[in-house]
Amino acid sequence: MKYETDNVTRLETNLDDCAPEILGAAMEKLLAAGALDVWFTPIQMKKHRPAVMLSVLCEESAAEALADWICRETMAFGLRRETVTRLKLQRRFETVATEFGEVTVKLGLKGGEIVQVAPEFESCRAVAERSGQPLRAIYDAALAAWGARK
Amino acid sequence: MKYETDNVTRLETNLDDCAPEILGAAMEKLLAAGALDVWFTPIQMKKHRPAVMLSVLCEESAAEALADWICRETMAFGLRRETVTRLKLQRRFETVATEFGEVTVKLGLKGGEIVQVAPEFESCRAVAERSGQPLRAIYDAALAAWGARK
Amino acid sequence: MKYETDNVTRLETNLDDCAPEILGAAMEKLLAAGALDVWFTPIQMKKHRPAVMLSVLCEESAAEALADWICRETMAFGLRRETVTRLKLQRRFETVATEFGEVTVKLGLKGGEIVQVAPEFESCRAVAERSGQPLRAIYDAALAAWGARK
Amino acid sequence: MKYETDNVTRLETNLDDCAPEILGAAMEKLLAAGALDVWFTPIQMKKHRPAVMLSVLCEESAAEALADWICRETMAFGLRRETVTRLKLQRRFETVATEFGEVTVKLGLKGGEIVQVAPEFESCRAVAERSGQPLRAIYDAALAAWGARK
Amino acid sequence: MKYETDNVTRLETNLDDCAPEILGAAMEKLLAAGALDVWFTPIQMKKHRPAVMLSVLCEESAAEALADWICRETMAFGLRRETVTRLKLQRRFETVATEFGEVTVKLGLKGGEIVQVAPEFESCRAVAERSGQPLRAIYDAALAAWGARK
Amino acid sequence: MKYETDNVTRLETNLDDCAPEILGAAMEKLLAAGALDVWFTPIQMKKHRPAVMLSVLCEESAAEALADWICRETMAFGLRRETVTRLKLQRRFETVATEFGEVTVKLGLKGGEIVQVAPEFESCRAVAERSGQPLRAIYDAALAAWGARK
Repeated sequence: MKYETDNVTRLETNLDDCAPEILGAAMEKLLAAGALDVWFTPIQMKKHRPAVMLSVLCEESAAEALADWICRETMAFGLRRETVTRLKLQRRFETVATEFGEVTVKLGLKGGEIVQVAPEFESCRAVAERSGQPLRAIYDAALAAWGARK
Repeated sequence: MKYETDNVTRLETNLDDCAPEILGAAMEKLLAAGALDVWFTPIQMKKHRPAVMLSVLCEESAAEALADWICRETMAFGLRRETVTRLKLQRRFETVATEFGEVTVKLGLKGGEIVQVAPEFESCRAVAERSGQPLRAIYDAALAAWGARK
Repeated sequence: MKYETDNVTRLETNLDDCAPEILGAAMEKLLAAGALDVWFTPIQMKKHRPAVMLSVLCEESAAEALADWICRETMAFGLRRETVTRLKLQRRFETVATEFGEVTVKLGLKGGEIVQVAPEFESCRAVAERSGQPLRAIYDAALAAWGARK
Repeated sequence: MKYETDNVTRLETNLDDCAPEILGAAMEKLLAAGALDVWFTPIQMKKHRPAVMLSVLCEESAAEALADWICRETMAFGLRRETVTRLKLQRRFETVATEFGEVTVKLGLKGGEIVQVAPEFESCRAVAERSGQPLRAIYDAALAAWGARK
Repeated sequence: MKYETDNVTRLETNLDDCAPEILGAAMEKLLAAGALDVWFTPIQMKKHRPAVMLSVLCEESAAEALADWICRETMAFGLRRETVTRLKLQRRFETVATEFGEVTVKLGLKGGEIVQVAPEFESCRAVAERSGQPLRAIYDAALAAWGARK
Repeated sequence: MKYETDNVTRLETNLDDCAPEILGAAMEKLLAAGALDVWFTPIQMKKHRPAVMLSVLCEESAAEALADWICRETMAFGLRRETVTRLKLQRRFETVATEFGEVTVKLGLKGGEIVQVAPEFESCRAVAERSGQPLRAIYDAALAAWGARK
C-alpha cells in the first residue's frame, strides 16, 4: 500500500449530563493536552436526551492521560477505547506568493505524486487579518497561485 | 384554500448551559403542560458548544405559561416567540380489524377526500404489547386491513 | 438597501412517521414540482423519535400546490406556513476557460460591485465527467482562471 | 449463530475543508466505485467548524482503491480504517401483484424463517412513476398484497 | 491502568426504511431487553435519505439476542458488530440531605480517589416530583449538599 | 406579560458550497461584528449535500451590515430575514466567594423574582485557569456558594 499507516487510539463517550458550555471548554483542553483530533457528534439517548458523543483520537501512549482529562473536564464515568489504523498521505508544505502576501499550501502525496492541495488555514487567516480581505479570497488566491506555478 | 388553518405560537430558545438529562425531563414537562409539540434540534453555538435548540408549538393563549415552564425547567434566560400559520388536513379516526386485534387508523382529509392514512401509534403499540407481535407487524396489518376495506 | 428583496413562503413540517427512503424521493418530487429549495433537519421529537423536519421554500403563489405535494408524498397531516423576506445579491453568469474546458462562474453583485464568485456546480460536474478530472480540480481551475482574468 | 457473517472494511474521515456540494458528488462517485454503503454524519470539529464525517463500507479487497477515490474526490489527507463483522439476514426477493402493478418485495430470513419484509425501493419507485400514484401508496399496496398472500 | 476495564459489543445498523415512531418504540424495547446503552445518530444516506444509525452497546453474551430484537423491532436486514474496550471509573452511591429531601449522588473513583460527582437522575426526578420543585433545583441542591459535606 | 420584550432580526442562509473551516472563521467574524448570537444547524440539501444553515440574531439596525458580513465571509448569494420577538428575564449579576476564588453568578428575574441562576462562563473559566481546577468544579462551587447564601 502506498499510504503511510499507523495505529492510533479512539476514545469515545456518550455524554448526557454535561452542559454544552462545559463541553466546549473541554474540547480546547483536550487539544491542548495532546489529542490528535477531538470532535462532537449529536446523538439521541434514552429518556429523551439530546446528547453528545465526544470522540478523541490520540497516540496509544497518550490514551490513559487523555482519558483522565476527559473524566476531569466532562461528566464522563467511563469511555470506550478502540484501536484504528490510519492511512495517510505524506504531507509537504510549500509557500506561494499571492497579491495579499505569502501563503502556506499543504500538499498531500501518495507514492511521490501530489494528489491533494489545500491552503493552510492559519496561514490564510493571518494573511486575511493583515490584509483586511475575506478569508475566502485568500484561499482562492492561494489556489490560483499554486495553479499558476504548476 | 381547502386546508383548515389556524395560528399558533412557536417558542424557541438556544440552550448551551443545560445538560441533556435536564432537557429530556423538560420535554415531558412541556408536553404535560399543554404544548402542542416539543422538539430538539442539534445546533453548534459559539465557543465550541454542541448545543440544542428547544422548540415548542402552542396555542397563543398558552404562550406565557409555557415560557414560564421553559424558564423553570431549563436554563433559559429568554426565548424567541413567533406566530405561524398551520395548514391542516381534517382528521377522522376509524377502526380496522386485524388478525392481532382492532387498530385505530388516522385519516387525513382535504375537501372531503381522504389523502392520508396512518395507523395510530398508541393503538398499534397497545396491540403489539397484547399480542406479543412486533410493532411493525401491527402497522403493516392495519394498512393491509384498511387497503382491503377500501 | 442595496440588496434585491422579495417575499417567499416557507413551509415546514415535523415528520415522525415517514421512512427516510420515502423522504428522499419526496425531496426530488418537491424540487420537480417547483420548490425553490428543499431541505431536511434532524430533530428529536417526543417518545424517543429521531425525526426529520422538512422545509420547503417557494413562491407564495405555489404554496398550496406544494403543500398538496408534501401531503401526497410524505405522511404529513399538516404543516406550518410563514412568509420570509429574502435579501439577494444580483446574479450574473460568465464563462472562463480552463485547461479542462470552459466553466460557468456565478457572480454575486451588490450595488453593481462583485462580492461573490463561485464556479457553477453543474458546469463543473460536466467538465469533470468529460475530462476525467476530480470535481475539486475543476473548481480550483475555474477560480484560478477567474482570478487571472480580473 | 444463525446469521450469515462476513468481515468488511469501514473507512472514515473527518472533513472540515470540503464544501457540501463537493461531498454530495463524492457520495455518488464512491457508490459507483463499488462502495457497499456511504454515509455522512454531521460532526463539530475544532475552531468552530460544522464538519462532516464521511463513512464508507467496502470489501476489504476494495479498501485501497476506495481510499484513493476518497482522496481524489474530497479534501481528505488521510482516513481511518477498521474491520467490522456483519451479521446478515439471508435475502430473498419475491414479486407481488398490486392494483398498480407488480412490485418486488425483499424478504429477510434467519434460519429459514422470514423475519423481515420490505417493499424494494426502486421497484416501488418505478411503479409510482408509471401509475402516477404516490410512492407511499405503492409501499402500502405491496405490504397489503404480501399480507394477503401469506 | 487505574481504570476498570471490560470488553463489550457494539451493534450498529444504518436505517433508511424505518419510521421514527417505530425507532422510538424500538429504543425502549432494546433497553428492556438488556442493552447497556442505545442511541441514535442522524446520518445522511444515499438517494437523499435523512436516515438514522442505531447503536447498541451490550454484553458479548447478549449480542445475538439483541441482534434478534433489532431485526424484530426495526427494518434492519443486518448489522455491524464490533468489540470495544471500556475504561470505567468505579462507582459508589451516597445519599445527601437537601432541603427538598434525600438525594442519591453517584461518585466516580479512580485508584480510590473521587474524580466524578453527579446527582443521580431518577433520584432527583423523584424528589422534584414530590416537592414540586424544578429538576434543576434538586441537582443544584444535591451538589451543594455534597460540597458542604466534603 | 412580566417578561421584557423586544424585536430582533434573524438572518438565515443555507450554505452548500462553503467549507467548514471557512464557516468556523465566519462565526468569529460575525460575533465580532456585533451579532447577538450566531449558530449552525446541520441540514441536508439537494444533490446529497450535507450542508449547514447559518443563523444570526441581531438588532434590526444592524441587519444590513451583518448581511454584508455574511456575504463577505461565506459563499452566500442571499439570505432570509425575519423579525422575531424576544421574551427575556431581567438579568442581574452578583459575586459569590468560593474556595477557588470569586465567581460571577448570572441571575434571571421575572417580575422581581429570581427564577434562574447560572454561574457566568468566562468568570468560571478564569477561576479554573488560575486555580488549576476543572471548570465543572468551579460551576459546582459557585452554585453551592449561591445556595448557601440564599
